Parts: sequence; C-alpha cells; structure tokens
Amino acid sequence: MTADLRPSPISATVDFDAPGVQHGFLRLPYSRDDAAWGSVMIPVAVVANGTGPTALLTGANHGDEYEGPIALFELARSLRPEEVTGRVIILPAMNQPAFAAGTRTSPIDRGNLNRSFPGRHDGTVTEKIADYFQRVLLPRADVVLDFHSGGRTLDFLPFCAAHVLPDKAQEARAFDLVRAFGAPFSVKMLEIDAVGMYDTAAEAMGKVFVTTELGGGGTASARTTGIAMRGCRNLLIAAGILRGEAEPQPTQWLDMPDGDCFTFAEDGGLIRFCADLGERVEKGQTIALIYPVARTGSDPTVLTARRSGLFTARHFPGLVKPGDCVAVIADEVEG
Amino acid sequence: MTADLRPSPISATVDFDAPGVQHGFLRLPYSRDDAAWGSVMIPVAVVANGTGPTALLTGANHGDEYEGPIALFELARSLRPEEVTGRVIILPAMNQPAFAAGTRTSPIDRGNLNRSFPGRHDGTVTEKIADYFQRVLLPRADVVLDFHSGGRTLDFLPFCAAHVLPDKAQEARAFDLVRAFGAPFSVKMLEIDAVGMYDTAAEAMGKVFVTTELGGGGTASARTTGIAMRGCRNLLIAAGILRGEAEPQPTQWLDMPDGDCFTFAEDGGLIRFCADLGERVEKGQTIALIYPVARTGSDPTVLTARRSGLFTARHFPGLVKPGDCVAVIADEVEG
Amino acid sequence: MTADLRPSPISATVDFDAPGVQHGFLRLPYSRDDAAWGSVMIPVAVVANGTGPTALLTGANHGDEYEGPIALFELARSLRPEEVTGRVIILPAMNQPAFAAGTRTSPIDRGNLNRSFPGRHDGTVTEKIADYFQRVLLPRADVVLDFHSGGRTLDFLPFCAAHVLPDKAQEARAFDLVRAFGAPFSVKMLEIDAVGMYDTAAEAMGKVFVTTELGGGGTASARTTGIAMRGCRNLLIAAGILRGEAEPQPTQWLDMPDGDCFTFAEDGGLIRFCADLGERVEKGQTIALIYPVARTGSDPTVLTARRSGLFTARHFPGLVKPGDCVAVIADEVEG
Amino acid sequence: MTADLRPSPISATVDFDAPGVQHGFLRLPYSRDDAAWGSVMIPVAVVANGTGPTALLTGANHGDEYEGPIALFELARSLRPEEVTGRVIILPAMNQPAFAAGTRTSPIDRGNLNRSFPGRHDGTVTEKIADYFQRVLLPRADVVLDFHSGGRTLDFLPFCAAHVLPDKAQEARAFDLVRAFGAPFSVKMLEIDAVGMYDTAAEAMGKVFVTTELGGGGTASARTTGIAMRGCRNLLIAAGILRGEAEPQPTQWLDMPDGDCFTFAEDGGLIRFCADLGERVEKGQTIALIYPVARTGSDPTVLTARRSGLFTARHFPGLVKPGDCVAVIADEVEG
Amino acid sequence: MTADLRPSPISATVDFDAPGVQHGFLRLPYSRDDAAWGSVMIPVAVVANGTGPTALLTGANHGDEYEGPIALFELARSLRPEEVTGRVIILPAMNQPAFAAGTRTSPIDRGNLNRSFPGRHDGTVTEKIADYFQRVLLPRADVVLDFHSGGRTLDFLPFCAAHVLPDKAQEARAFDLVRAFGAPFSVKMLEIDAVGMYDTAAEAMGKVFVTTELGGGGTASARTTGIAMRGCRNLLIAAGILRGEAEPQPTQWLDMPDGDCFTFAEDGGLIRFCADLGERVEKGQTIALIYPVARTGSDPTVLTARRSGLFTARHFPGLVKPGDCVAVIADEVEG
Amino acid sequence: MTADLRPSPISATVDFDAPGVQHGFLRLPYSRDDAAWGSVMIPVAVVANGTGPTALLTGANHGDEYEGPIALFELARSLRPEEVTGRVIILPAMNQPAFAAGTRTSPIDRGNLNRSFPGRHDGTVTEKIADYFQRVLLPRADVVLDFHSGGRTLDFLPFCAAHVLPDKAQEARAFDLVRAFGAPFSVKMLEIDAVGMYDTAAEAMGKVFVTTELGGGGTASARTTGIAMRGCRNLLIAAGILRGEAEPQPTQWLDMPDGDCFTFAEDGGLIRFCADLGERVEKGQTIALIYPVARTGSDPTVLTARRSGLFTARHFPGLVKPGDCVAVIADEVEG
Repeated sequence: MTADLRPSPISATVDFDAPGVQHGFLRLPYSRDDAAWGSVMIPVAVVANGTGPTALLTGANHGDEYEGPIALFELARSLRPEEVTGRVIILPAMNQPAFAAGTRTSPIDRGNLNRSFPGRHDGTVTEKIADYFQRVLLPRADVVLDFHSGGRTLDFLPFCAAHVLPDKAQEARAFDLVRAFGAPFSVKMLEIDAVGMYDTAAEAMGKVFVTTELGGGGTASARTTGIAMRGCRNLLIAAGILRGEAEPQPTQWLDMPDGDCFTFAEDGGLIRFCADLGERVEKGQTIALIYPVARTGSDPTVLTARRSGLFTARHFPGLVKPGDCVAVIADEVEG
Repeated sequence: MTADLRPSPISATVDFDAPGVQHGFLRLPYSRDDAAWGSVMIPVAVVANGTGPTALLTGANHGDEYEGPIALFELARSLRPEEVTGRVIILPAMNQPAFAAGTRTSPIDRGNLNRSFPGRHDGTVTEKIADYFQRVLLPRADVVLDFHSGGRTLDFLPFCAAHVLPDKAQEARAFDLVRAFGAPFSVKMLEIDAVGMYDTAAEAMGKVFVTTELGGGGTASARTTGIAMRGCRNLLIAAGILRGEAEPQPTQWLDMPDGDCFTFAEDGGLIRFCADLGERVEKGQTIALIYPVARTGSDPTVLTARRSGLFTARHFPGLVKPGDCVAVIADEVEG
Repeated sequence: MTADLRPSPISATVDFDAPGVQHGFLRLPYSRDDAAWGSVMIPVAVVANGTGPTALLTGANHGDEYEGPIALFELARSLRPEEVTGRVIILPAMNQPAFAAGTRTSPIDRGNLNRSFPGRHDGTVTEKIADYFQRVLLPRADVVLDFHSGGRTLDFLPFCAAHVLPDKAQEARAFDLVRAFGAPFSVKMLEIDAVGMYDTAAEAMGKVFVTTELGGGGTASARTTGIAMRGCRNLLIAAGILRGEAEPQPTQWLDMPDGDCFTFAEDGGLIRFCADLGERVEKGQTIALIYPVARTGSDPTVLTARRSGLFTARHFPGLVKPGDCVAVIADEVEG
Repeated sequence: MTADLRPSPISATVDFDAPGVQHGFLRLPYSRDDAAWGSVMIPVAVVANGTGPTALLTGANHGDEYEGPIALFELARSLRPEEVTGRVIILPAMNQPAFAAGTRTSPIDRGNLNRSFPGRHDGTVTEKIADYFQRVLLPRADVVLDFHSGGRTLDFLPFCAAHVLPDKAQEARAFDLVRAFGAPFSVKMLEIDAVGMYDTAAEAMGKVFVTTELGGGGTASARTTGIAMRGCRNLLIAAGILRGEAEPQPTQWLDMPDGDCFTFAEDGGLIRFCADLGERVEKGQTIALIYPVARTGSDPTVLTARRSGLFTARHFPGLVKPGDCVAVIADEVEG
Repeated sequence: MTADLRPSPISATVDFDAPGVQHGFLRLPYSRDDAAWGSVMIPVAVVANGTGPTALLTGANHGDEYEGPIALFELARSLRPEEVTGRVIILPAMNQPAFAAGTRTSPIDRGNLNRSFPGRHDGTVTEKIADYFQRVLLPRADVVLDFHSGGRTLDFLPFCAAHVLPDKAQEARAFDLVRAFGAPFSVKMLEIDAVGMYDTAAEAMGKVFVTTELGGGGTASARTTGIAMRGCRNLLIAAGILRGEAEPQPTQWLDMPDGDCFTFAEDGGLIRFCADLGERVEKGQTIALIYPVARTGSDPTVLTARRSGLFTARHFPGLVKPGDCVAVIADEVEG
Repeated sequence: MTADLRPSPISATVDFDAPGVQHGFLRLPYSRDDAAWGSVMIPVAVVANGTGPTALLTGANHGDEYEGPIALFELARSLRPEEVTGRVIILPAMNQPAFAAGTRTSPIDRGNLNRSFPGRHDGTVTEKIADYFQRVLLPRADVVLDFHSGGRTLDFLPFCAAHVLPDKAQEARAFDLVRAFGAPFSVKMLEIDAVGMYDTAAEAMGKVFVTTELGGGGTASARTTGIAMRGCRNLLIAAGILRGEAEPQPTQWLDMPDGDCFTFAEDGGLIRFCADLGERVEKGQTIALIYPVARTGSDPTVLTARRSGLFTARHFPGLVKPGDCVAVIADEVEG
C-alpha cells in the first residue's frame, strides 16, 4: 500500500461541503513530551453559498509573514455568505506552529512548509500539513491565493505574482487574477527550482495559483496590509466568487530574468546599504558595503549591482552572514 | 575598600593620550567554559590631534540597532588626524557581545547596558563594561554622542535628542548639538525613570550628552544611515572638533509630554496597524487592532489613540504580547 | 538613597481604593530582546464594598501549583461587591511568568518568589514582584491567604497551615482561620529557615497569614479544587469579609516537630514507594526503594521511616536524584 | 539489497539461548559530538530454564511511565531460573534514552518508539531500537507484555488490555492473559490507527500481545506498582512460564467504542476538573472548565461529557493547550 | 525520476576545469529562520596545471579534527600552479557547519557526514554535501586523501591508513600512498560496517583512497600538524601531481584484527588510565579504572586489556559514559 | 545582622571531629523546577586518627580538571586511619555541579568557584559552596592542597605552585610543600588579581596553601595522574600527617614575572602551533599562526614570542576566539 492510499491523520471540525459560515480547525494529532495525546490545531473558516468556484486562501505558509494572516483573519471574521457565490476556504495560519512562534519554519521540526510538498501522511508535522493540502484541500479548489512577504530576514517591494506555465490558458487565468489583485508591482515568475513548493503542487493539478510578496522585516504596515486586503477582495471578485465592486489599481510589471538579478554575500559583517528599495540602480553601482566588525579600521567589502534595474528586494537584518542573498534587482517591463 | 577604588579588569590596547590614529581593543577578561582564559574584545579607535575637546562616540549600546555602528565603523576607518582638533574616541560596538549576537541585551548575562550604570568592577560582563565607561571613558569626554535606533522590536521616526536638565547651560549646549546634528526630527526628552542609564551617568558628570533614535526593526536603510553619518559629522563640526563644512538640515521638534503618548497592549495576538509612522492621528482614532489567533471568527481588540499628534514610534513585529508598547504619539512643537 | 525610598517600577491599572469590581493588571516594565518596551502583566482583581478588613488572596507563588489559581480565577469572576464587607484583592497568578510557563520558578530569572522577599525595586523581575507585594500590597492587607500545593515534584495530603509566632494573639487569629478553612488536615508550622519567604514578610508586618498545601504533581483534581474553593470562602466568612454561610469541615491536625520527619535520597535512580500518602508508617518500616537503572540485577537502596507517623508528603516523579526529599512523616495531634 | 537483509547495528552482551540468569546490554553504537565512538546501552536480563515458551517483558516504551520499569527491574533482580519453565526476556527500559531523561520520547531524536515500528537498521536511534525488536526479539517471543501508564501528561484508571484481532484464537489467548493479569480494569481495544505500533508489529507475527495503562502523571504509587508486579507474575503463571500460585483479582471490563469517548480542548488555559477518575458521568454533564489566564474576570470554556460512562482517563497538567485530549469516558461492560 | 538525475542544489563559484589557482565556495542554499535566502558556504581551492591526475584533499569531514584543516588551509594558500602536474582540489572544511561550530557533527542537522553517503540532493544539509561529493567531486578525482583525527572525545597514535579491498591493484596503489605519506604509524584497515562512509563511496568508484588519524582531543600540536603537512606533500609527490623532493619517514605498521582490540565501558564515571598511548600492554593488564562519582569510598570498575599489543587509541574526556569506547589495542606488524 | 552571622544552609552528614573513616556529603538545599525540595550533594570523606594537623584536599574547583579528582577519589577510598596522624578532609569534587557536567563553571549559575570567595550564605549555589569553605572548612585546616589542571581549553606543563606572600614564614612552609610534592615543574606565583580566589581566602587565614596545574585538555593521562597521586602522598608525608616513605622527585622551578609571558589572540580562526609545550622559544620566534576560515587563500595572523623562555601553557582547542590567551612562556629559574 503506498502512502497516498492511507488517510491523513488530520481531521477537520468543519464540513467543507456545508453552506454558510463555519469556523473550526484542522486537528493534527501530535504526541509529544508535554502532551501525550496532544494536537496541532490549524484554524480554518469556510464560507459557502450557492454554486460557484472555490477559492483557497492561505497565509503564514512561512510563519513570520504577516500581511496575509491579517487580511485573512479579518476576511474570515467579516465575510457573509450572501456576498459569496461558490465557496471560500480560509486558512490564515497554514503552518500554525511556525506562525505561533513567529518564525519562518516550524519550531517542531524546522520544516519549511513551502518546500515540503507533496508531503507525507506519516512524515513530520510539516509534511503532514502539506499532505493534507495536497490530498484534501487543493483538489477542492479552483483558485488558490497564497500570501507571502519577506519575513524577518528579507524586504520586498510589494508585488503580486504568478508563474509562467506550460499550459498557457492556465497561465493566462493566473495573470488575469494578478492584474485584478492590483498590487503596486506585478511579476511573471519563472521558477528555476520548484521542488517541494505549494505553488507547483497546485499548478500541477491545473489550479489557478496566485501568490504575493508584500513587504517584509517580520512586520506589516498599514499600507502593505491595505494592499493585501484590497487585493484579496479584487481577486475574489475577478474570480466570480465575491459580489461587489472591485477597486482597480495601477501596477508596474517586473521581470527577474536570470541569476545576475541576485547578489550574494561572500563575507559576513555589518551591512550598509547605499540604495533603498524602489530606487533605480545602474550596473556597477555600489549597492552595499559589508564592514568587518571584529576591529575598527578594516576596509569593507564592496558589493556592486551586477545589472541595471529596480532595487526590488534586500536582506533585512543589520548583520549579514556569508551566503546570504543581499539584493535583488529587477527589470521594469510591460505587463 | 569600596568598588570605586579597585581598578577595572578591562585593559585598553590603545593609549588614549597619544596623538594620531589608533585602532585597538578594550580587553575584558572573561573566564568561561569554552575559554578558561578568554576575553571580551571591544573594538575602539582613537583619533587625536592638537588641543581641543574630546568627543566620545558610541554605537550598539543595544546590540540590534545599526545606524550608529555603521556610521562609526565608517568614521573610525576614514577619519584622519589632520581633520581633528582635539580627540575623537569611537566605540561602534559598545556592548560588543550583544552586537555580535544581534540582540538588544548581552547573550552572556542578558544585561541591558543602558540600565547597568554606574556598573561594577566585579559584576557581570555588562556591568564591567558600564564601570569602565563610568570611571575611564566618560571622565575623558566633553561631548558624548550615543546612537540608538528602535532595534528589532520597535520602529521610530528618525530623531536626535537631548534631555531637559537642571543645569540650563549644560542643557543648552546639548540642544545646540541636537540642532546641529540635523535629524528630520528632534526631541527634548524629560526622562521619568533614568535609573541606570548611560545618559544619566554622563549628564551627572556635566558632560554634553546627545542621543538618537534613527529607525528600527533591526535593520538600517540607506536613508537612515545617511542621517546618522551626516549628523555625526555635523555634530563634531559644531563641537569644534572636526574641521570642514557642516550640512545643515531642517528638523521638526517633537514633544512627548505625558503617559498618554504611550499605548500598551493588554492582549496578545496579531497586530494590524491602521496608521503608519509619520501620519497625524486624532484622539480616539483607531490606531491598531489585535486579532486573537487561536481561531478564526473572533473580534479583534481595538486600540485607539489616547491623544492627537504625530505617530512617532510603534511596535515592529507582527505578533504582540500583553504589556508591549504598541504606539507612541508625539506633539509637533517649536524647537 | 536606599532602595526602599524609590518607587516600584510596577504600575497597577486598578485603583485599590475604589469600590466595586475591577479587573486589571500590575504592569512591570521588562525590556528584553523580543520586546524592547515590553512588560510582565500580572492579573489582579479588586472587589470592594463598604468598610471592613482587606483580604489579600494569592495563587501561583510557585507557578506549577494549581488549586489556588483555579479557586481564585473562579472567585475573581464570580464575586459580587454586595457579598463583600471590606475588600478582597485577588492575584491568582502572583508569579505570572512562572505560572504561564507551568514551572515552580520564573523562566525569566529562575527566581523562586517565595525566597525573594523583601525584594528589590531595581532587582530581577521576581525581586521586583516581591518588592511590590512588600511595599504596596501587604501594607494594605489585614488577612493574607497564599495558596500552595506540591507542584510537579512533590505530593501532599491536603492541609491548611499557619506559623507558630512570637505574637500569640496574631498566631491565634491565624489558627482560627486555618480551622475555618477546613482542609482535611491542618498544620501548625515552625519554620526553621524563613529567610526570604512571603509568609515571613507578611507576619513581620503583623498580618494574619494563612497558607496551604493542597495536593501536588502539577495537577489539580476535582476533590482538591473543591477543598480550595470551599476553604477560601470559609476563611473569608470567618474573617468577616464575605457574607454567607460557612461550610465547616472536620480536620486532623498534624505536627512535623523535627528533622527526622524528612527523608532525603543519597542515591539517584528509579523510586518504588512501598506506602502511599495517608498511610500510617512505623519507624524502621521500608518506605521506598531506589533502583539503580544503568543495568539490571543490582540491589536497590532501602529507605526506612526514621519515625512513626502519617505519610504526609512524598517525591512525585518516578526518577529521583541524590539530595531529593523523598518522604515526610508527620504526627497526628490534637488541634 | 533491502534494509531487511542488513544486520542490526545493535549487539547484545547476553546469549539469548543460554540457560540461567544473565544481566547485560543491547549496545547500539551512536557516534555523537560528546562521544565519537559512543553507544546507547539498553539493559536486558534473560532468565531461562528447560523447555517452554518465551515471554518478552518491556517497560519504558515511553520513558515517563514508571509502573512497568519498577516491576521489571525488581523481577529481573529476583527471578531465579528454577522458577521458570522456558524463558523470560526482560527489558525494563526499552527506550533507554527516553527513560533516562524521564521523557515520553527520546531526547536524541524525539522518537516515539511506539510509532516507530518496524524501524530501520540505518535510521534514527529510536528506529534502530524498533528494528532490533522487530527482527531479533519479537521473533523469539511467544507472549509479549508491554507496560504503559499515562506518563507525565495523562492519568488513567489502572487497566490491562489486548486488541480485538482478526485471528480469534490469537485474540482469545491474549484476553485470557489480560484476565489473568487481574488489573482493577480490563479493556478490549479496537485500535483505529495502529501504524507504527509495537503492538501491531507483535500481533502481525502472531504473538500474544498484552499491554497496560496503570496510572499516570509521571509517578508511580505503591498501589499501582503493586498492580504491575502482581499482574506480571499472574500473567507469567497463566502463560505456563512461571511456577507458583497466581493471585487472582476481580476486574471490571471497559469499552471505548467510538470517538465520543474522547474530549479535546479547543482552547488553552487553566483546567478545572469537575469530576475525578473513577466517577460515573452523564452525557451533557460538565466535566471540566478551561479558564483563560491572561486576565481575571473572563468566563471559562465549558466542556461537557459527550456520552455517559466511567471517567477513565484525563489530562494531567494544570494547564491545557488547544488540541489536548482532556477526558476519556468508557462503558462498563461484561468481560 | 530518481534522485540521481536531479541536479545538486549546490553551485560552485570556481571552475573545476580551469587552470591556475582559484579560491571560491560551494554555495548550498539553506533557507532558515535567520536567513530566508541564506546559504552554507564551503571554501574550496583548485590548483591546476597541465595534464595529470587529480587529487581531492579534504579536512573536517568531522568538524573537531584539526590537523587536516591546518595542512589544507596552508596548502591552499601556498601551492603554486607551476608546482603541479594535473590538479589539486582542496576542501579544508568539508562539513563546514560542523567545522565552524567545532563539533563532530553538523549543528544544523546533527549529521555525521562520514555516515551520510551517498547523500541526497533533497535531503538534509549534510546529505546534500555528501551528494555533491558523490556526484560531482569524487568522479573528478583519481586520488582522495581524507584527513581525520580523534576529535574532542578520542586520542590516537598518529597513523595513515587505507582499506583492504577486493581489487588488489586498487588496494596496492592506496598502500603505496600510505607508505609515501610516512606517518609514524600505518594501518591496513578492514572496515566491518562501512555503510554511509565517504571512504566506501570513493573506493566503490575505483578511486585510490587514503585516510588518517593524526592525534585527537580537539586540538593539534606542532608535531601532529607537521606530520599532516609533510605527509600530504609526500603523498602528492608520490602520486605524480606535485613536483619536488619527498621527505620519506619510517613507519610502524599496525593491525586491528578483531573485536577484542576494542574495550567498551559498561559503567559511567571518572576514568583513570593506567597506561598511556604508545605503551605496550599485556592481555589481562589493568588498562583503566572507572570511579563512581556520586560518593567517596566506592570501588572503581576495573577494565583490563582483552589482548596484548600497542595502546593505540583511547577515550579522551575525563568522564566516561556507559557504552563509550575506552581503549583500542593494536598488533605491531610488518608493513 | 550581617551575612557572616547567619548559618550556612549546607549541612554535612559527616562529623568532622570524629576519628576513623567517614564517607558522606555536604547537602546544600536547592529548590528548583525539577525538585522543589532538592539538594546539591557534594561528596566528602574524613580520615582522622590521633592528634596532628589537618589537611584539606580539594579537586574540581573547576569541573573539567581531572588529575585532582582521580587522585582524591582514590585516596578517599584507600586511606586507612592508622596511616594518619591528625586529619585528612577530602573533597574530590568541590564544585560538584560543575564536575558532574564536565564544565569549568557550574551549570546551575555559571559560577566560577575560584572567583566566588568569600561567598554568601544567601547567594547562588556556587557562592553558598564558597561560603561553607570560607566559614566551616578552611578554619579547620592547617594545610590546603587544591588541585587544578588546564581544563578543556588550556594545556600546561605539569607544575605544583604556591604564592609569594607577605608573611615569609607562611610562604616558606608552602614552598617546602611544593618541593615535597615533586611535580616535574614548580612555580612561585605572584598573583596580580587575586580577588575572589580560594587561594587568597585560605592564605588570608594564615593557612599553608599549595596548588597545581597538572596538564589539561579536559583529560588526564596515566603520567599526569601518577604525578598527582604521588605528589599528594609526598605532601601529606612532608606535612607530618601521613606515615610512610616519600618518593622525592626532581623539579624545575619556573617564573612568570610579567605580562609579556602571556600572548593573547586578537583574531579568531584556526590555530596552528609552531612549537609544543616544553620547548624553549626565543623572543620574536613564530609561536603560532591563526588562519581565517571563511575562505581559502587568506594569509594567517602571525603570533610571535614576546620573550624567550620555556613554552609552559597553551590554548587547547583547534579554534581560537579573539581575546583568548594563546601561549604562556616562563623563565627557568633556580628553586
């Protein structure tokens, strides 16, 4: 018997096929030293009404990214069935243990949920969550919106994105929703190594998958929260699930075509940025300096832009370690 | 024999009374499990030339605040004696163990250096550092500039500040230097509980003491780093220690007159800010919501502004705990 | 200036002198790596009505003892002003950080609150809590009831107790309240080393101080919770603060006159008790065996009763370490 | 070559086929930072005499359950070959690293041994132990008795149990031994998810498998230890391996037919039980309250019995987390 | 698609096929809580010139063994292309995370690199390193020299070694290089359990594999460092890759023919050696005593030599745990 | 009431004034999360006979130094009263918690016992131990022998030592015993900072105090253990307490006259020693190199001897941190 055929150990306290509003949990039994018969409890809300497509909305795939969870806890609490045609399944804290700890990965098994798909029914806690999405939730969805931000260690210009896909109809539907979302920036992503990603799992089932990067640093501002909330409503309206008026927003499309977009540190130290996110930088321009910190008087390492473009993402903490990605530079392109 | 009369266990590898540029260390013997005869090594630079006042410049009093260390590692490496009249003593990483760990307090003893003055020669590592400043470095200084930012858990509008003092001449000299520093905002602070602060220790000796809050979140942007570097030069020029042209900048003075400026959370959860730093808020306006995260469907706690003013500082991480300071609102005043 | 003359850094969000029901906090500012401007929040309730004595009721002096917190969270929620003549101040989680962690001592500083009196306004978090009780709460009280149980590592026959005191009038008032409490067992305690105890601090101010040991193991049963809740009401009625009918209960008085009452392990291992709490044991009787666990086939160490009496308290976990108190045997005496 | 065909890395210092009494170890090589050529040493005793069946007796499958280890360290030390017809293999500390740490799971790899079968010869330490039982010890056994209790986080009415099995002859032999064991309660268990259990591994080989739950809380009383010791002897006598007189005891059979027997917490907080183990409860009766602990004055969550029956098991610690099993209610049935 | 066919996630910043000297990194992307887009950076140097064989030189397979890293950091820095005929690939810190932490295994995943072959491209960090050696580096090598020492917990007489192999020509080439290395001792090893070893992976590809044990205790002396540096040059010269004069050294061949060479502790305590490394011991001679440390007055366990021979390796720390290998005794044999 | 006047909380299970052999404990009550009524148990042996002086013998003042504990556990077990004239008090594990953990300082409070004198009766566990020695044990002693070695992070040529003292008669008695001890090397020490040392506490009471450094690295060899055992007997015989024949040994006297004897690292990295302990080095000679380890190809820092002399002590681990003492060079002098 293969893993696929055994049931998930997770049980839901909501009925995904019932109409109306339900608030409940995915209960994942987790026997541990401080609770022999304990469980991980992942909050879930379902709002369903009539016949229509299903949207699966997720936050905290990484536990330290906050615009998505804020938008989704608010949506789950305020969305009324009469606004919906079809179904909205909302999980504001997809990797609940990571979210509760405020960390990217799960404190239980250090699992990066977005590298754990398709998961295992008999694996780690993080793999069991992935398996449940793979076998229970994704098959129920038509449209998937997975919120990300930079987390505690990265900062991004706020963008919404979808992937370049072999199935161009599927791709076009996704980019339509990216456009509808209306983030200040939009990205057509070509994932080089998509092993284990939630994105890939959803797209392989033919789902329309949309994601975001809406800021970072492990915080959320009123501005980036507003982008998340408005974008989520716009997308649901464009998908024909939510009634109401969309609030269209202008967006600038970006492209990160190759590895030169990414600059990595080879030295650790104190990082001084010489440009800020949103600035245009030219190839060869000094983008950051890394100061050795063991003593004064040492010269810093100079990091220069490997290409011209818009400064789109950067390392967030004041200290940097060898191997950290320091800066991402993108092309401004037509949408 | 009282503590004051025993020598500090710290020895300096620089001669504070020699002219020219010196880069060295404060060596603090620290016997521990992984180094029986180990030491804490605090980098220090001294640049001296001719006769004139002494400036003592410090960063990383709290280890996760970066604008100061960047400005001071750069200054220590680039300052030439011929630019100086008098002496500049630079310690970019005052609480070196905290700075190396990227944490507010020392990983050795969890000491908050800015609450450890006057220190103890036979105390914890953090207390020994405080004692060395109290008895060796502060007595040598005329002007003290101590850089702070919000660190990983707070974010500030960038300001330079000094304290309201009983000695009005001392106070006036400090506010002159605050004005010269030229941060976007400037503050006249009335410290309510100044026990254990470096500020208090310096002021009690009659020193001119200036401090800053230049951003936060545990990062430093190109913009806030620029404020720190330019402000530091401006201040040294105004103090008559550095030759060259100052770059005067406009500043807005702020005042935080009473406890109503500060809003504390009584509930933990996911914090959604409804205004951003730099916005004007009105008394009674919703400034933030705190969502319970154990389940969906619960109503958030509403935090409203207890006074009107400029939104000057806020809690940074996306999760908040009961008792955390969530927001600071200040008055815009004449300088 | 001595420590006594500086104000506590703790502020209360309740007014101890106002009538009616108030629920609030003692807020203790606590700057730390994960909250630069954070606080410890200790819940407090005040129920006051008319003129009469003040009772100060506390649980979780040790954080893993549960009968007291249950009785006090319930009392705080249900007590109505009209039932009261005077004032009841309720702190169900006196050492809140320890209580939240489920540990005897504080996870912040490993402080044992009951050995931290009179505390320090500029000490550790635990010492600051002690100082606030010493200087703010105890002076307001007439009667103090401090709930204890065995915690995770000890188990007790449920008893209420007070100390033998030099002031016989004070002592008599305390024993009257012990009798009124009506636990299954009651104890007249002669504290040998009372340094740092809350008990001692209260008694030295002339307060009537009553305490308990109501079970243990880090749990609370319906039975022991019932003893705590009924005893608390009985005591408040006897003290003239609570209106209503007392529920008198029979009690057996116990005495632990000397060091022979206590048996300590000199060897670590797996402990097998040969008698259970509440059984009468005879001097020389085997009370427990300690098996070495590194290999099979070794003989256990035999621990015998050093006196005859009632088996009153024991070590709780299945493993024992050298130096642990294994058993307490008491005399049954007249009350 | 599949995993099954490689030898276990574990070597035994006893000869399982030799007569007489042997005390020794299973030595499991475990290279680690503090012992490059270290090993885990699992104590084992073998007592053999003449021709007869083999009993495999195990304790500390979970490391914080003590009745089994006590009974088995005592049996290993006192059992004489002339009392035996056949063979008794005794491992009082099956998951030795967990037992030495006093924790349910292994401190080395957090492995839950009872979910690690059939194990792997090249897996984690816990999986290697499981593999050795799977391939070396279980094949040698006719009867398996595996002692469990509730551990630090659960408490049980003391019972002995076996599984309902497809092979009714195998099942009948097991229930005969359960009856012979003579615990106060006896259970016919229908395991819903038996993946990875030692029980399942043994039963799949056709072994007669008996288990227990004899108390809990991470302690052992004289009473529950007595049940374990007497039950073990009774079972060995009934299995024809031990000579001597059995001490038959009355037992009450229990049944847990469906999911309604189990109550889970959806909220964390301070748990107040309103009934104790061994009490009969009625459907709808309040069985426990969960108080929020962040502040006083909040109403507790009420947990009611989902069915009538005997209160058989409960959560042990005073604090409860969302997802913890709080109570188990069983039917009293005919044996 | 099997694991073998997917590319390694590791990228090299050097071109293994370019001539001259290159210093760079293997960059292994490693997303973690403190660096969402972080990497492990393994230093690598390549020195190539003309046509000839390739030597792959590695240190810190175990992170606390220092003779190899010292010899290789020095060689990498000083080796000039004109000295080389062929290619030398140098990785002084093969398991870089372990080396940086000073621990045998990786602090990231506790992986023992030398038990992780052939590795996995989608496994743990340690498994990814093994996979890169398996699929990228080993195929490029003709001769492999992997430096080991005893690390923090073992001490060895300094020896160089190769394995007895089925392919006698391959074996002979390896022993020729061992002889050329010229350590004070040389060993022909018959590996009993070679699962997961780097050695085995290399030998299975037909490579000439040579290894060492050059001391231990987590330190390196001038003497053992000299053996490593001279031996490395000698071996490269003998392999025809390095020009220059070899410095031949006498060596004593040792043999460890069976399990009696190894003595394991069954008891923990304070270990007193009665002989030192390099001494000849006789079968039955007391080689060490283990004192119980819980109390004075107890007799130590006596460990005697199970065979006569040269005392070749021993446990290093002053405390010993049950299961630790305490002593290794070898035969002095003809080379 | 000052601290001095309150009794120590430590109680001894031996009678220091009784004749014969006693093995027992100092029991130090230590209430903690895992043992509310727990204790630290420090083993102690007393061997007394007739009238004569008292020797106080201590090991594990630092917990990772092993020659002393081995010599003293052996002496405690084998010494017979009839060999003694006077009294021998033996504590092989003075800082028992540190010794049990194998660490220099106490795992309980990170206390360095040898910097904790005179201690406090109400201080940390380590301070309570110091206080007991200060007020109970040292006053009973005439001669004190305190064994040290280098521990896990330092290595020493084996020497016995005493201090240069103002009281020349006291000093002469100590040096007589150093000479009698007969270590390969002997040292007359001039302690520059003696604050908190056991040595100073003893000498201030007029006791004859002798100490050692007998190796290091956290291990003990047969050779260094032999020096400790023989030296201890020789000293006791010379002090007139032990009957029997001394085994006089030649010794070389060393002197460390000033700070140039000590070399500290200012850079961290991989340390390569260019000379070994016991070698004569010349001023200016390269004694060690420190390689940066982040990348290959970097030049090491060169550390040269600041004076000529015998290489007497060195840093032990293969990695070094800024501030670590790397080397000690001593003068060979006349005794």
